[in-house]
Amino acid sequence: MKKHFIALSLLVLFSGTMCLAQTSSVIEDFKPSTKNQPGQEYPMVNSQGYARFRIVAPEAQSVVVSLGLGGQRGGTVLSKDAEGVWMGTTSGPMDEGFHYYHVTIDGGVFNDPGTLNYYGSTRWESGIEIPAKDQDFYALKDVPHGNVVQVLFPSPSTNTSRRAFVYTPPGYDRDQSKRYPVLYLQHGWGEDETAWSTQGHANLIMDNMIAEGKIEPFMIVMTYGMTNDIRPGGGGMRNFAIEPFETVLLKELIPYVDANFRTLTDINNRAMAGLSMGGMETKTISLRNPDVFAYYALLSGGTYSVEDIQGKPQVKLVFMSSGSKERPDGVINAAKALNDAGFNAVSYVSEDTAHEFQTWRRSLYQMAPLLFK
Amino acid sequence: MKKHFIALSLLVLFSGTMCLAQTSSVIEDFKPSTKNQPGQEYPMVNSQGYARFRIVAPEAQSVVVSLGLGGQRGGTVLSKDAEGVWMGTTSGPMDEGFHYYHVTIDGGVFNDPGTLNYYGSTRWESGIEIPAKDQDFYALKDVPHGNVVQVLFPSPSTNTSRRAFVYTPPGYDRDQSKRYPVLYLQHGWGEDETAWSTQGHANLIMDNMIAEGKIEPFMIVMTYGMTNDIRPGGGGMRNFAIEPFETVLLKELIPYVDANFRTLTDINNRAMAGLSMGGMETKTISLRNPDVFAYYALLSGGTYSVEDIQGKPQVKLVFMSSGSKERPDGVINAAKALNDAGFNAVSYVSEDTAHEFQTWRRSLYQMAPLLFK
Repeated sequence: MKKHFIALSLLVLFSGTMCLAQTSSVIEDFKPSTKNQPGQEYPMVNSQGYARFRIVAPEAQSVVVSLGLGGQRGGTVLSKDAEGVWMGTTSGPMDEGFHYYHVTIDGGVFNDPGTLNYYGSTRWESGIEIPAKDQDFYALKDVPHGNVVQVLFPSPSTNTSRRAFVYTPPGYDRDQSKRYPVLYLQHGWGEDETAWSTQGHANLIMDNMIAEGKIEPFMIVMTYGMTNDIRPGGGGMRNFAIEPFETVLLKELIPYVDANFRTLTDINNRAMAGLSMGGMETKTISLRNPDVFAYYALLSGGTYSVEDIQGKPQVKLVFMSSGSKERPDGVINAAKALNDAGFNAVSYVSEDTAHEFQTWRRSLYQMAPLLFK
Repeated sequence: MKKHFIALSLLVLFSGTMCLAQTSSVIEDFKPSTKNQPGQEYPMVNSQGYARFRIVAPEAQSVVVSLGLGGQRGGTVLSKDAEGVWMGTTSGPMDEGFHYYHVTIDGGVFNDPGTLNYYGSTRWESGIEIPAKDQDFYALKDVPHGNVVQVLFPSPSTNTSRRAFVYTPPGYDRDQSKRYPVLYLQHGWGEDETAWSTQGHANLIMDNMIAEGKIEPFMIVMTYGMTNDIRPGGGGMRNFAIEPFETVLLKELIPYVDANFRTLTDINNRAMAGLSMGGMETKTISLRNPDVFAYYALLSGGTYSVEDIQGKPQVKLVFMSSGSKERPDGVINAAKALNDAGFNAVSYVSEDTAHEFQTWRRSLYQMAPLLFK
């Protein structure tokens, strides 16, 4: 399974975040990216998905923008104008949604001072948002909003207090008698517990679906999956051990959440999902602990086989998703095989997206109505 | 009062974050700053308070570190070694506590990729922490922890949903019958609603004081004071209008918090405090709305006069603080005058700190036991 995951990861390194086909001309309707710092004009994006960057560094020798996952290998080389300002536009439109990036200035890696920062690739990076046709489902709207609660839970196994974020749906604090199902939702390698609510807008996706009556309210718990402890020279993902995170999740976090929030604590009201390496964690932990979760979901994070699920009648749903620019046949075929064997499995393919957050925002949106039925 | 505030702000620009007196030699016991990104060694700090920086930018022409508030005008100029790595150490020890900084590379302003980012001076900046003798009171300890709850509250007056953070003390979610007093706590100019819990560790200060029995639990609410909307060319702070924030706070946020959290809603269970420009806001709003708060606190943010408080018997406490490197006589004399006139006023001077967060962490620590008596 680990080998499978590594192969998948290598594949996505060669799938792009940018369509290489050139359009005839760049439309000059650039607007500031919604991921910019307050008051910052640049970077900008246009209606075709081109991104334009502006970096002030008058004495620099070279400024190059590198966008997510190596999809733009070589990057966007900026040119200096007469005032010492470096400007440049991507050579083609980018995929819709969120992309991590950084700027290489005279050989050093920095963030674009124009943008907010997002934890990816084990560092806080710049981010840019290409407006998507379906962006309404994760927009901030005038609807009742849930909270994102930062908790510090005791973790004797790691000898510290660890951080988790708990999404509580609108009305959670008003009706003190109501209890809720819980989705444990994991980020990918290089990310942390901030990813799903910040890059993923998981809270807004939930708020909007609840307001539209598309789902019954449930809680989401997000914590650090300890996925980044594979240090260079440490043997890579092959040497990743699930046990430390499994202990934190099952022995420390879930009991803490159940003791401090109004959760429904039976297996039928607990789901686990993860993106990319968080999918690998979900698969391993769900199968090793068959009495904890009844709903399993892997988002760009591999597949379950019939052998994995056989003999586990308590599994209510297997959800597997992928961007169309990844290797979508994997999740489609896996769901078919599970369906043929009589299991409730669903695959979802996000159109025209790769191994990036737009795939996972959409995956959450597709998955949420299927949980806790 | 506004003029007073501007004079005060100018003064602190010329107070330093760095003691200029040289010690005989730099002790080579440098350790990574606690504000670094995961796994990052640099910047480092030593036991004397010197900071050492390391920036990789092999082709750069110049790299200069600028530390908070202009205290190190000219900054720390880094030198390039044979491998193209820029290194440099401050020319003297820095004040204890947290300092914002940025790096100027070839004439452009960037963040140090080694550190986490903090919103100050209207941008996300680098931050460094000089260990303080009294750092225990804001340390993460093995005690019960409260939560920091992100809420999105409806704001018809600004036509959006606005963000606030609500600190709820340990046990808040367990005992559903208990209600709590609330402190509304404002950041300074250039900062936002993240400042008090991130740079200030307000939640950890509260957790520790509650665990030690030094205070009765109360809630803290932190939102954006709309202080940064004075754009260049917009006339500066003289043109700052309090009304938009006053409306958000009194007509929108307080009712939302009272409706959605278990608060005590009478004047005797409500306090307002703010640092620097947040103090100016606190003073203006508390005096214009005498029926809302019974506890007033200005942290490096000016003073109340006897005339301000006279005829307001409902005011239970006036707390005013300052760093010893600011202009501490102001708060000392103001408290004396209020005491002489029969009011309960307390001044606090933070030793050896300037207009920075160590002053305000300590101010919260000193103020908290005096609230809601």
